[in-house]
Amino acid sequence: MLQKPRGTRDFLPEEMERRRLIEGRMRSTARAWGYREVCTPIFEHLELFTMKSGEGIIQEMYVFEDKGGRELTLRPEITAAVLRMYVNEAKVLPKPLRWCYFADCFRYERPQKGRYRQFWQFGVELIGADTAAADAEAIMLSDAVLRAAGVRFDLHVGHLAPMKHLVRDLPAEEQRAIMAFLDKHNIAGLEERLTEKGQHDLLESLVALTSCRTPAEVFAVTGDLPERARIEETFAILDAQHIAYTPDFGIARGLDYYTGMVFEAFAPNLGAENQILGGGTYRLAHLFGGDDAASCGFAIGFDRVMVSLGEFPVEHEPVVGVVCTPEARIRAFEVAAAFRDAGIRTEVDLMQRGLGAQLSHVAKVADYAVVLGKREAESGTVTLKNLHSGEQQEMTLADAVSEVNRLGHR
Amino acid sequence: MLQKPRGTRDFLPEEMERRRLIEGRMRSTARAWGYREVCTPIFEHLELFTMKSGEGIIQEMYVFEDKGGRELTLRPEITAAVLRMYVNEAKVLPKPLRWCYFADCFRYERPQKGRYRQFWQFGVELIGADTAAADAEAIMLSDAVLRAAGVRFDLHVGHLAPMKHLVRDLPAEEQRAIMAFLDKHNIAGLEERLTEKGQHDLLESLVALTSCRTPAEVFAVTGDLPERARIEETFAILDAQHIAYTPDFGIARGLDYYTGMVFEAFAPNLGAENQILGGGTYRLAHLFGGDDAASCGFAIGFDRVMVSLGEFPVEHEPVVGVVCTPEARIRAFEVAAAFRDAGIRTEVDLMQRGLGAQLSHVAKVADYAVVLGKREAESGTVTLKNLHSGEQQEMTLADAVSEVNRLGHR
Repeated sequence: MLQKPRGTRDFLPEEMERRRLIEGRMRSTARAWGYREVCTPIFEHLELFTMKSGEGIIQEMYVFEDKGGRELTLRPEITAAVLRMYVNEAKVLPKPLRWCYFADCFRYERPQKGRYRQFWQFGVELIGADTAAADAEAIMLSDAVLRAAGVRFDLHVGHLAPMKHLVRDLPAEEQRAIMAFLDKHNIAGLEERLTEKGQHDLLESLVALTSCRTPAEVFAVTGDLPERARIEETFAILDAQHIAYTPDFGIARGLDYYTGMVFEAFAPNLGAENQILGGGTYRLAHLFGGDDAASCGFAIGFDRVMVSLGEFPVEHEPVVGVVCTPEARIRAFEVAAAFRDAGIRTEVDLMQRGLGAQLSHVAKVADYAVVLGKREAESGTVTLKNLHSGEQQEMTLADAVSEVNRLGHR
Repeated sequence: MLQKPRGTRDFLPEEMERRRLIEGRMRSTARAWGYREVCTPIFEHLELFTMKSGEGIIQEMYVFEDKGGRELTLRPEITAAVLRMYVNEAKVLPKPLRWCYFADCFRYERPQKGRYRQFWQFGVELIGADTAAADAEAIMLSDAVLRAAGVRFDLHVGHLAPMKHLVRDLPAEEQRAIMAFLDKHNIAGLEERLTEKGQHDLLESLVALTSCRTPAEVFAVTGDLPERARIEETFAILDAQHIAYTPDFGIARGLDYYTGMVFEAFAPNLGAENQILGGGTYRLAHLFGGDDAASCGFAIGFDRVMVSLGEFPVEHEPVVGVVCTPEARIRAFEVAAAFRDAGIRTEVDLMQRGLGAQLSHVAKVADYAVVLGKREAESGTVTLKNLHSGEQQEMTLADAVSEVNRLGHR
């Protein structure tokens, strides 16, 4: 039996309805904040992602040549593509640009719970605003989108400047090693490494930084920094809007990539793979031949959000099933059309079995049966049967449509 | 400057809004008929499509090996994947299954107007019903979906049995050659070929068949056929529901693939590439290790529908732009939150320029400006400015929200 490729998924209607519901809530929240949807191709030239993330990313991507010998890749993420699009087509639009996307991405790695080879991201990019207000907006919107999705989460907000300041004198390679330990909260490993290199002072400052919970504490560790005013203003905006977040200056994500503010969210009911959102300020457009536009954005791991939400039921509109004798087949489609015209989801029997078999089928898929038997054919009526209560009544078609509309959800 | 890959597209917000609007109309029409959305992976094992369509299709596909050496391909169409999914996961669900999808597909060929390497299809599959009512439902739904999209189209409905009957004694290869001529309406080419082979009688019957406009005319050409009752019943249902279609027994699409009823739609305002829908009855599940479920479905070329519709304006909700002095920055976010809570799309100034610069920006992107200057800060009010009429008035925040809600669209 042919199977789907490893690490991919099929979605049956129940799951698609849950996914579309949450996707819709995310999109309409972003829209309320002025973020409009864009769409980029599924595959891009390979160099788009190596320019952004280095050659190492090739190991995690599906790379293939097209028949013209160009190296293409299924996109591993969307930000690089959105910024390429900005450079190609939108440089002249009034700034800031507020864009969002809902898109599938691809990653070649061992499949595991919450990590798939085809996965979806909902994200936003705010391009061309370089202010504390811009940073704060991106963070507040990430909070609003996750709240709209209904997921429980912890939001962490930090800034890379203090950490970059502490490690500024080390070689880039050493900085990266330190960041990797911090990113994994591996303080024992960090201590071993720094002690080995005779940098025990740095260990103390770094550990102190990871436990700072206010900008004032941070700058007591690092001394004053040029970014101080912007960091304080950003936090002041978040506080004034009552955003629930943990200041976290131990966030060490993408030191080469992010330029300032960084933020992450975690779902406490997920296991080890519990990060559901990551974002920050960055500059990418100049890499792709554009201006040096300051940008800020985030991406939500949509599949992990869905895992976190679990298999909740989606309220659905009432469903009508039309069942009929052979003589009433043509009338069945007319009756169905009347229900559909009133916005009611309606299925007509197509199996052409007996009325009993038809009724036992619609009991599985519908809330109401509309029966077109001999008596109804003679009198021009229909019989409306409530499939939950079992009650049924003969009436005119118009009355049946009104009745289903009136009773609505089961 | 890095560009998107050849034959792909970026969609800016204006175009995405048009696309989402039409996609939504198609999806909700299908839903009203009981068709619920499913989703399959972007790539599949290569053999899924060669089993359905033959090895020839490899030339038109993006094929690549994953790192485990498995041959994968970006899906060229969705039906095979949906039927694989049915076999893998849904054989036990009560039949008929009514499924729809909106999905991107991939084709490696020369890009041209209305034909892209990544393109979208909206389609439905009706699995497990083998009746005239099922055939009629698929055809009527295709009509309803295209009407909901607002596109002008001509619907052609035919059946392969009469044509298969006429060519039944010829070798398969010869049958295919004849079908290719008919599919291209190349009667001169067909005549040359058949005359060469001494089959001039067949030419007459085939040409007569292509001009038949009723089942009765068809069976006058072919003699009675076992499929006659079902064809007549299907047409009777379409006629009773006042579906506007052209009976067309010259349709020669997918003779190896389709098993009976076939239908197509064309947009008269498109050029040579004017087919926007194709469908019919088929059997695929047994190829993938399932039962021999009778199926019927269609796919709509979504991109061609969008070309046919042109660049129509999408009505949008009113947009509010909040502009402020530096002192009012924090209040600006509170004011924006009040509008958003009332469902109003609201953008806050993030550039931190002067009020004049802010106002000239919002005039480009919003319908109303909410001004938070010195006077408003002192009095706790806002000034609401209609950016179309230029009228403005100082009022409470609550009044401003009500006013925008009351005035609504510009």
